[in-house]
Amino acid sequence: MLPPLQPLDFTRVSLTGGFWYNLQQQVGQVTLGHIYAEMRHQGQLDALRLDQRMHRGRQEANGWYWGGSIFWDSDVAKWLEAASAYLLRHRDAKLETLVDGTIELLAVAQQPDGYLNSHILTWRPRHRFKNLRDLHELYCAGHLIEAAVTHRQATGKETLLNIAVRFADYLVSVFGSGSRQTPGYCGHPEIELALIRLYRLTSESRYLDLSRFFVEQRGTKPHYFDREAVERLDATKFRPNHPVSPYAYMQAHVPIREQREVVGHAVRAMYLYSAVADLARELGDEELVRLCRNFWQDLCRSKVYVTGGIGSAAENEGFTKDYDLPNLESYAETCAAIGFAQWAHRMVHIDLDSRYTDMMERTLYNGVLAGLGMDGKSFFYHNPLASDGTHHRVSWPWWCPCCPANLARLILSFSGYLYSAGPNVVAIHHYVSSEASFSIDGQEARLAAVSDFPFDGTASVRFEVAPSSPFEVRLRVPGWSGDCQFAVNGRDVAPKIVSGYAAISRSWKSGDELTARFPMRVQTHFSNYEVAGNRGRAAISRGPLIYCAEETDNAPRLDRWMIHPEKGTELDRENGDLGEIVSLSVSGSIEEDEENSLYTLSAPARKSCPIKMLPYYAWDNRAPGEMLVWLRHGR
Amino acid sequence: MLPPLQPLDFTRVSLTGGFWYNLQQQVGQVTLGHIYAEMRHQGQLDALRLDQRMHRGRQEANGWYWGGSIFWDSDVAKWLEAASAYLLRHRDAKLETLVDGTIELLAVAQQPDGYLNSHILTWRPRHRFKNLRDLHELYCAGHLIEAAVTHRQATGKETLLNIAVRFADYLVSVFGSGSRQTPGYCGHPEIELALIRLYRLTSESRYLDLSRFFVEQRGTKPHYFDREAVERLDATKFRPNHPVSPYAYMQAHVPIREQREVVGHAVRAMYLYSAVADLARELGDEELVRLCRNFWQDLCRSKVYVTGGIGSAAENEGFTKDYDLPNLESYAETCAAIGFAQWAHRMVHIDLDSRYTDMMERTLYNGVLAGLGMDGKSFFYHNPLASDGTHHRVSWPWWCPCCPANLARLILSFSGYLYSAGPNVVAIHHYVSSEASFSIDGQEARLAAVSDFPFDGTASVRFEVAPSSPFEVRLRVPGWSGDCQFAVNGRDVAPKIVSGYAAISRSWKSGDELTARFPMRVQTHFSNYEVAGNRGRAAISRGPLIYCAEETDNAPRLDRWMIHPEKGTELDRENGDLGEIVSLSVSGSIEEDEENSLYTLSAPARKSCPIKMLPYYAWDNRAPGEMLVWLRHGR
Repeated sequence: MLPPLQPLDFTRVSLTGGFWYNLQQQVGQVTLGHIYAEMRHQGQLDALRLDQRMHRGRQEANGWYWGGSIFWDSDVAKWLEAASAYLLRHRDAKLETLVDGTIELLAVAQQPDGYLNSHILTWRPRHRFKNLRDLHELYCAGHLIEAAVTHRQATGKETLLNIAVRFADYLVSVFGSGSRQTPGYCGHPEIELALIRLYRLTSESRYLDLSRFFVEQRGTKPHYFDREAVERLDATKFRPNHPVSPYAYMQAHVPIREQREVVGHAVRAMYLYSAVADLARELGDEELVRLCRNFWQDLCRSKVYVTGGIGSAAENEGFTKDYDLPNLESYAETCAAIGFAQWAHRMVHIDLDSRYTDMMERTLYNGVLAGLGMDGKSFFYHNPLASDGTHHRVSWPWWCPCCPANLARLILSFSGYLYSAGPNVVAIHHYVSSEASFSIDGQEARLAAVSDFPFDGTASVRFEVAPSSPFEVRLRVPGWSGDCQFAVNGRDVAPKIVSGYAAISRSWKSGDELTARFPMRVQTHFSNYEVAGNRGRAAISRGPLIYCAEETDNAPRLDRWMIHPEKGTELDRENGDLGEIVSLSVSGSIEEDEENSLYTLSAPARKSCPIKMLPYYAWDNRAPGEMLVWLRHGR
Repeated sequence: MLPPLQPLDFTRVSLTGGFWYNLQQQVGQVTLGHIYAEMRHQGQLDALRLDQRMHRGRQEANGWYWGGSIFWDSDVAKWLEAASAYLLRHRDAKLETLVDGTIELLAVAQQPDGYLNSHILTWRPRHRFKNLRDLHELYCAGHLIEAAVTHRQATGKETLLNIAVRFADYLVSVFGSGSRQTPGYCGHPEIELALIRLYRLTSESRYLDLSRFFVEQRGTKPHYFDREAVERLDATKFRPNHPVSPYAYMQAHVPIREQREVVGHAVRAMYLYSAVADLARELGDEELVRLCRNFWQDLCRSKVYVTGGIGSAAENEGFTKDYDLPNLESYAETCAAIGFAQWAHRMVHIDLDSRYTDMMERTLYNGVLAGLGMDGKSFFYHNPLASDGTHHRVSWPWWCPCCPANLARLILSFSGYLYSAGPNVVAIHHYVSSEASFSIDGQEARLAAVSDFPFDGTASVRFEVAPSSPFEVRLRVPGWSGDCQFAVNGRDVAPKIVSGYAAISRSWKSGDELTARFPMRVQTHFSNYEVAGNRGRAAISRGPLIYCAEETDNAPRLDRWMIHPEKGTELDRENGDLGEIVSLSVSGSIEEDEENSLYTLSAPARKSCPIKMLPYYAWDNRAPGEMLVWLRHGR
């Protein structure tokens, strides 16, 4: 039994080059500024002044029912979190000024008792926490707390943390099962995982207790959302369209310990399960552990796209029935993929098993990264696996601007997802050029990793400073890898593979170098029969990257192609408009243009014609056109 | 140039055995009684008593906004038409009593000025013709007139015709461009073609003129439907969801002569185009002829299912965009297929061309006949080309009971669709065992045809009584036929094929026998690329019949099959639950059940396994289950 691992957070790890480093540079230098400018233009920042007049004009332009969206504060918080993470590694006086100024706005807006929510305070100041189901107050509080934790970790400043702690303490006083407390919880989970982050930073158990209360109170009967609806004289039934219960939309149909199936709004589900996984660890609660494993199994059995995208339906931004994974109409919200990666990262700390890290890798490189345009300032809100040429990124998803800052904070804190360490073990989840410091047996150690992921599967890890005690290295063996090879200081080793991680235990010396080769094969994926739209089709991947075909590299009417990758695929490493990238030319055939009649008695003539494919994350960055992940497969 | 042909109506032709004869027997002996019983139960017959109290109980049970549906009178009329046609060939005193009694109800309900509509007279008697767009008054009048024409032809009685003529004369007085007349027309075409039938029976040109007025007034500006909406203070915009115009739903967006594309509600389109084709002939109007040909071309280019079903969308019960022909979700209303066959029959009398008769045959044997269950008393309202096992016939489509009596009248007057004659020519459109009398050069002639269609492609025609003048026989060569052979009195002849009809001209003697062999091959159909759901799929036909696979003959999850009919198909003539039928066993392979994971790296293993297919019209008559027309095709 492996001792519990702790993730090495982003303060312990810095990226040193390559794919993710370049991404961080772009997000730091372009995306952060773009988001801030949009928030200034749209009204998120002005909203913090708690003055209805600030919404004039904007209100009409955007068609908001009330001025501004109910969850604008969370955009600000996510931007603060992203910017703080960036400032840890980069001097940027201008950005620092914007961050400090924004924190000052929050400080002024915060009420004497600690409460803070621009929407409520501006539009209905006497109605705090009257509609927990819909109004996202605790969700916004959660993002504020997350931002504060990251800001404190990155900058050492207490300014934002003080605001968050005052707010959190207010929540501790308001919510709970006490006779004068509110026994409610938020329609959109987020506060639960945020409180655990705050607990881990401060070691104050009241935050852990409140998180646990929110998680365990959820879905209990009599239902809190019914009670509060009655109290506010609301006669409208809530979203009566889920077969099980309207509250399944927010995973509040039954108490969490009675839930067996992944249901409802995908982002909400991911944030809730993340909190449950954290609680399971913190409380040593085996029932919650089993619950998480069940949810994971259910999701991966029938509800995840090959890109790692989740939540196929626009109607509920979430899950529907098993195997309902349409391609052209897929919703697969960027934020849901982000939440999935976050949950996977937490699962790895319950079970060090590569099935979690493999899926995390897949959703990061595909479902998540597709959400960000190459220009760093355009975004997909939802991520279909096929396009007729009409789906494009937008510079700001003003109707629900949750994704841009969520992408930014994930990418800028990505270094915190790479490694974990325990008393005598360090685990490497993702191969990214980076430096990490960790402690073994109380002694500081440092490693430097170099890799060319996601384009080449060779990675090396050099222990710059090794502790005197022997320790074990656990290296994830990616599920996509061909026969892998390991060497220590140039000499082959044949480690035992435990739950998908290669375990190499020895007395490491400073300067020791561990190399791993994970051959990146071109792989052909087929779907379960039940996924109706994928029958007779195949998807192509290489290493962690799912590929897609675009019209601009090929020709219109992409579905004329039929691929037969078993006849061969050529690789080409390119460095052009899309940066460094590996393109594929997959053997195939194409229907020849024929007579135009509706029905004919002859199968369409086909001629041999390869199809060019590029990584899915890079699509829609050049000439607009059709896109296809699941290509027809056959001879 | 062929002289104009006249159809030999159902009074000139009687069926003598075989497939259609059996159908007529069943419809006459089962379906007519079933429909009458349902109309008595539901309220159509009682509604003719014009008493709101007759609707009590029924109103609540069916959730009608007003008692009864606005077009219930048309159900009664179509039943009368069907029953009348049956009574021509069959003594059935009980049925005759029901027919006469129903006509008596209509006679009593008719107002002194000739007006007759149970809905208006019961619920808003002062509001005749105030909402032509929605309320189907003229549509109901049209069906009453059609019933009267058929009743007069079949029985020689004037009872129903008198009612219809009085109503029609009232309409002639009310509608028109005169200063005291109403310049409107019906939202649902039908009256137009009915008035032409009345004109042809009575030779009264005022009925032709009114039909022409209705057709030509349609879609003119200022728009009549706008005008009447204003007059009744209706502020609600009408169905604002067609890209061209809301009135495209009823083919009233622009005047008919400016229409180029088949749009809107499919039944309305078919009834309107039928009237336009009739008018084109009656008026010798070349512009209308071109219009009809254009509509036909547009429909067949991109908007018809391989079953001859039309109108793919439930939303408007009609046409959407080109090539939008989904299988599982197809609407393809039974009545739309009936209307399509009626229009095709009229097109044949503009151009004697087998492309019209071929399509008519296809929609009759597939799109239409699927609508009627083998028990004669269950009905499909819409006819998908694939089913997940949940689509079944109902004993009465109470929400819109248009199809049952429409099926009955089509089948019972089907003998009127088989032959046409001109001064010195007789044309045979469909090969059905029957006797027909016609005149050549003013002399009576008689033929007897024998065929085993749709299961065998051999047909013989014996001239029982031949006129002294030579004349030409035109026999349709079905588009699906292999190399066809013709013989006269056992000696091969090689006729010229003109527009898909074999032309054999000679001095026919009484007793001469003409035989034709049209080999029924099993054919494999492929779709145009633009029909997204049919890519990589094929449909199977034999002769006029489109085939489908059902779960009950095979196994669940029909889409595991991949057919390769080029490797062979076995035929089996069966006589069981489905009556006489030819089943096919088509070469194919099936995916073997494998591990249950969502994605795998190996293409599903396949093993050789034929699939049993039966004619589409016969599906859903045994154990409920999946059904599929377009099967995956490949090796």
